[in-house]
Amino acid sequence: MTTAASDTRWLDAAARLSTRARPASYPNPGVGCILLQGDRVVGRGWTAAGGRPHAEAAALAQAGKEARGATAYVTLEPCAHRSPRGPACSDLLVEAGVARVVAGVEDPDPRTAGDGLARLRHAGIEAGLLRSPAAEASLAGYLTRTRHDRPHVTMKIAMSLDGCIAMAGGESQWITGPQARAHVHARRAMADAILVGGGTWRADRPSLDVRLPGLGERSPQRVVLSRGVAPDGVTIINRPEQVAQLEALYLYVEAGANVAASFLAADLVDRLEIYRAPIIVGAGRGAVADIGLERLDDAHGRWALAERRQLGSDSFAAYSRLR
Amino acid sequence: MTTAASDTRWLDAAARLSTRARPASYPNPGVGCILLQGDRVVGRGWTAAGGRPHAEAAALAQAGKEARGATAYVTLEPCAHRSPRGPACSDLLVEAGVARVVAGVEDPDPRTAGDGLARLRHAGIEAGLLRSPAAEASLAGYLTRTRHDRPHVTMKIAMSLDGCIAMAGGESQWITGPQARAHVHARRAMADAILVGGGTWRADRPSLDVRLPGLGERSPQRVVLSRGVAPDGVTIINRPEQVAQLEALYLYVEAGANVAASFLAADLVDRLEIYRAPIIVGAGRGAVADIGLERLDDAHGRWALAERRQLGSDSFAAYSRLR
Repeated sequence: MTTAASDTRWLDAAARLSTRARPASYPNPGVGCILLQGDRVVGRGWTAAGGRPHAEAAALAQAGKEARGATAYVTLEPCAHRSPRGPACSDLLVEAGVARVVAGVEDPDPRTAGDGLARLRHAGIEAGLLRSPAAEASLAGYLTRTRHDRPHVTMKIAMSLDGCIAMAGGESQWITGPQARAHVHARRAMADAILVGGGTWRADRPSLDVRLPGLGERSPQRVVLSRGVAPDGVTIINRPEQVAQLEALYLYVEAGANVAASFLAADLVDRLEIYRAPIIVGAGRGAVADIGLERLDDAHGRWALAERRQLGSDSFAAYSRLR
Repeated sequence: MTTAASDTRWLDAAARLSTRARPASYPNPGVGCILLQGDRVVGRGWTAAGGRPHAEAAALAQAGKEARGATAYVTLEPCAHRSPRGPACSDLLVEAGVARVVAGVEDPDPRTAGDGLARLRHAGIEAGLLRSPAAEASLAGYLTRTRHDRPHVTMKIAMSLDGCIAMAGGESQWITGPQARAHVHARRAMADAILVGGGTWRADRPSLDVRLPGLGERSPQRVVLSRGVAPDGVTIINRPEQVAQLEALYLYVEAGANVAASFLAADLVDRLEIYRAPIIVGAGRGAVADIGLERLDDAHGRWALAERRQLGSDSFAAYSRLR
């Protein structure tokens, strides 16, 4: 039996599945799809590297004839547009004879934008949207690109309990421990591009790669915020607003105090990820330089806790920008 | 049936009970006692205001004849010394005919120091220590006073995500929200004395009282760390080390950056309580001034997360000093 609560749970599961697509599905959104026949999962799919096949096509291929009469849970509205690279997913779902489609987010792509669901309904399929925060979050890069014409920006800061990212003399190795640093590498692997400031680049020449077993090839595009000249293999932007030009759905910013301030002042941070070590530095370098805040009241109501976990003795907390 | 696991649970329950004694039991430790007859609690007690009756006496009075054959769980070893203010608890337990006594911490008071348990055993009672971190934590003030001859020091700091306790110009009302501020008042009510710095005292003339319904009379002794002259009703100390002179088991420090640094540099903080609001201030006043840290490595291994909770949109985290 399907209920609103079980529909929500299956969409959440499809959203978790979709994270397997990220970031290799670029430039396509990473979508997740689950096909349910009664209480049994008969197909699971996510967007393949490079964007094709789509999640629905992968799930249908896995289900074969068991797709007939099934319910499809899909994080994003199935596409309505044919492409040289493959058929429209709404057509595939009709052909496979699924009985019902539950989508988490309407596709803002003007070639679909409601037409995917309309085509399904026209073919007699019970098709509808069930607004899903999990699906929405899993599509953050695609939705931010479509709505704001820029990548989704996650900013990471590693600091002490008293908000220092380094000692007064600059020493910053290490604030956090090995589990937190491994977590950073896993987060890098989810990004299309990583950005650091010019100061960090010149001082540390950070490799910005993904140092995790099996994920070495996932190392994303490297970007430096600087007024200088670009070194080999690095993209330079002069101002935070220029992130719009990057070929990326997900940008991961490893921020020192100045980069943090310039992105925050430009309101270009969608998610703030803070690693906090249980140490006190005292009179060290602060995490964020001047952001032009005039009154304390203006700082409130902008961030909501989205995730929290313990990483060894360090804590990790992620905050979403409330827009 | 009693097992090691159930003994631990009952001692934990006695430790929770003992918090009702704090801080009114001053100068006596706040002790908790539970009398268990089979699976049934027949008596509960905690140290009364002013220190008498003791927890065991209160629990025995409640149990009456049902104390015979019962097990007594008590956070601190029952006292062996008679006093003009009342009989020794170990004698009371013998007279009541309890069958078994489980104590969480040996009393470091030289008048007892093991003699309480010895007297019980001599009377044929099965009496022993079961080391209990919960009982130890509930007696922190008494144990710190006995071992280090000073009160247990909790330091509270309220800050932004980026570690600011005020804007650069000094504005600090409000960083945290109403739930966090109410929590601070509840924490004040658990202290014998509250300390602020001279700067805060002169700038804000904080009332440092307990503004919670029914707890107005719990407002603790007010202490200012300053080189100046004491205003009416306020105790002055010039250096953090002078907390030893305070008539207090529990001192609650509401720290600005300089008070925080001087207490931390003197290693006189036992528990750090941080309230963190989901706001970014940027280039504000840092939480902790210079503590004389020479190498980042030296900052590690000193603090362990002890408690965490969400207070409205603010988070609360408490850290214990590892000694």
